[in-house]
Amino acid sequence: MNRRDALHMTALGAIAAAGGYGLGRPRAGNDNHPEAEAHGAPAREARLAGPDRAEILMLVYPRFTALDLVGPQHVFSLLGPEYRTRLVWKDTAEVISDTGIPFRPTQTFDETTESPEVLFVPGGTDGTLAVMEDPEVLGFLASRGAKARYVTSVCTGSLVLAAAGLLLDRRATTHWLAMESLASFGVQSVRERVVIDGNRITGAGVTAGIDFAVTLAATLKDDAYARGIQLMMEYDPAPPFGTVTPESADPKIVGMLRAMVVEFNRNVEAVAGRQATAKPSVDPRAED
Amino acid sequence: MNRRDALHMTALGAIAAAGGYGLGRPRAGNDNHPEAEAHGAPAREARLAGPDRAEILMLVYPRFTALDLVGPQHVFSLLGPEYRTRLVWKDTAEVISDTGIPFRPTQTFDETTESPEVLFVPGGTDGTLAVMEDPEVLGFLASRGAKARYVTSVCTGSLVLAAAGLLLDRRATTHWLAMESLASFGVQSVRERVVIDGNRITGAGVTAGIDFAVTLAATLKDDAYARGIQLMMEYDPAPPFGTVTPESADPKIVGMLRAMVVEFNRNVEAVAGRQATAKPSVDPRAED
Repeated sequence: MNRRDALHMTALGAIAAAGGYGLGRPRAGNDNHPEAEAHGAPAREARLAGPDRAEILMLVYPRFTALDLVGPQHVFSLLGPEYRTRLVWKDTAEVISDTGIPFRPTQTFDETTESPEVLFVPGGTDGTLAVMEDPEVLGFLASRGAKARYVTSVCTGSLVLAAAGLLLDRRATTHWLAMESLASFGVQSVRERVVIDGNRITGAGVTAGIDFAVTLAATLKDDAYARGIQLMMEYDPAPPFGTVTPESADPKIVGMLRAMVVEFNRNVEAVAGRQATAKPSVDPRAED
Repeated sequence: MNRRDALHMTALGAIAAAGGYGLGRPRAGNDNHPEAEAHGAPAREARLAGPDRAEILMLVYPRFTALDLVGPQHVFSLLGPEYRTRLVWKDTAEVISDTGIPFRPTQTFDETTESPEVLFVPGGTDGTLAVMEDPEVLGFLASRGAKARYVTSVCTGSLVLAAAGLLLDRRATTHWLAMESLASFGVQSVRERVVIDGNRITGAGVTAGIDFAVTLAATLKDDAYARGIQLMMEYDPAPPFGTVTPESADPKIVGMLRAMVVEFNRNVEAVAGRQATAKPSVDPRAED
């Protein structure tokens, strides 16, 4: 077996250990919930011990967009047993997504590691606005973001990172309907599917989460491993209506969608304005 | 305004009403959970009344693959207020997905409508095997499937539909690693991303769920509407490593992945064998 083969064996062996497409065992991350085992999670002693595992902290909050998070979480679950994903929130009471799915956080802010491998924030709209002005959430993100190896988001999750002061002067992206709102926080708002600026990695709207996460997986492991993940999750997309973008779509439809988010964007920009006023010392625009 | 414009207005107006990319209100489906409102779900009286709405029943079960379900659920949540998605299971106790996400079912089997618009089953592996031999689950699927307008699945969810007798002699698909197992139930196993045979619509592995759901959305509404959904969820995928398929990938990696699922497939085929023996009268292969 040559070196390249050995690399592949290692890579895919780890995918197998991680559960493949569910092959084997569910990933943990439910240590706060003993009943997880009753529902099929592996016995506690069968899991790898905690302290040596890299922690991926994924924020959940009322009315977050579930697909923004579940796409990346699936990819992360294939990274191998040395990674552990957590759904984090103030407490472990159920939160309902913006499409009506009840999720339970698996770890509270207080319980999380101070130095996560990845800090991740999903998007949403009115729920996202709420966390953008919640001091407890912003404080948590700022503290973990300062020590995280990667600070990441999908869709309008980048607005929350921006509100926490984690994207100042950085290149970053968001849903195509929120590009100007992101810029209002002093972020270099870029319309690309995945944007990497140092250890800040942001994905565009909703489905871009999968592209974001495979990109991050290649960084955390290697390209061969990430290719194995694409194959395992059968990521060979075939959008039924081909490429539909704001540039190619019917301008009337694009105009209607823009009209739908006028209020949301106005509210986001108001948050940006209030924060710039409240904290001039950390906002470089105040020094102009 | 011409007729085409009017169609678009109607289509996107409904997307707006449904919440856009979370714009506005979370979808309901949480009627069993009064606490949903405390976490931001709309007030009960603000929701549309129930009986006239088309019900989309999505099976959840211990160790199901979350992304198989959450991709389609996002698409369905954009269909407009005349549709309602339910996460259905035997009871409403939490179930943990195969990647470790705790979900709460929103409706029990007994509470579901007898005539759903859509019946949907996500995949998994060992959890999927368990429900394939669970008489309560199979009975529920058979009864609702007989009256559903569309009977659908993603990934190895089609194995469960097959075990419930809902895919006999039908063209259907599944994860590329489970094609032969699907055929062992007397199904015409086809390697396509989305397969439509009458009112049976099945999607391939994991990420194919989004393509499946956009296809179904176009059937339930129209092409213009489904295009609007693609635009709203920014479904313009860009796989970081391009097209990676079992045909194009390194044969060594493909071989390793196949080796990983030998036991799973053997177990599935054993279920198919037992069911063929137990119920010869409903299995056309027994008449050969």
